[in-house]
Amino acid sequence: MATLATEHCVACQKGAPRVTPEEIELLLPQIPGWTLVDDERGNRLERSYRFGNFMEALAFTKRVGRLAERAGHHPSILTEWGRVQVTWTTRKIHGLHRNDFIMAARTDRLFKLQDTAARD
Amino acid sequence: MATLATEHCVACQKGAPRVTPEEIELLLPQIPGWTLVDDERGNRLERSYRFGNFMEALAFTKRVGRLAERAGHHPSILTEWGRVQVTWTTRKIHGLHRNDFIMAARTDRLFKLQDTAARD
Repeated sequence: MATLATEHCVACQKGAPRVTPEEIELLLPQIPGWTLVDDERGNRLERSYRFGNFMEALAFTKRVGRLAERAGHHPSILTEWGRVQVTWTTRKIHGLHRNDFIMAARTDRLFKLQDTAARD
Repeated sequence: MATLATEHCVACQKGAPRVTPEEIELLLPQIPGWTLVDDERGNRLERSYRFGNFMEALAFTKRVGRLAERAGHHPSILTEWGRVQVTWTTRKIHGLHRNDFIMAARTDRLFKLQDTAARD
């Protein structure tokens, strides 16, 4: 089965369909660790990653940023000492598109790769 | 007169003095553009910088990160498409130290340099 992380972002225009509650129910279990936040700022996916210091956190921010730029879909990235919080949402539709779940899965893949590289 | 941006961060331990309200009154006008936020998360300094795209914002985040690492004092940096929000506070004392004002001024200096370089 193709996983979310291997799917590609598609260009998203105003009026593109948000994911339905039924789709969310299927997609969310595929990205464990991510929280669906729903408040006045709109639906979004959030996850924090932990690191041993500031520069490791910053390195991850850079990698997520480059991934985002290549995909043409950009998250909010909060960088702190030992922590990076990534938030995916689609502003054009004020909510969640399938792209956001794909990018969340690809962010996880990036984290696992960095983590593996650090242990080698 | 020496400016805040030319001062250096000093090592800050638990129990170090927070800036007093009188000091804040003198320091805040030296960093126009920064907002003093005071809520349940404690006193902090916040400023947003605007950029023309995501990669310029990310480049600024990297530069602020390197500045922070050299100084041994680390902010929260929120990176988004076209915007970077920087927050300075001193967790060890749950509030603001003179270091935070120094680093705010040095963040501004970094932004001005990047802005000047972009225009050249």
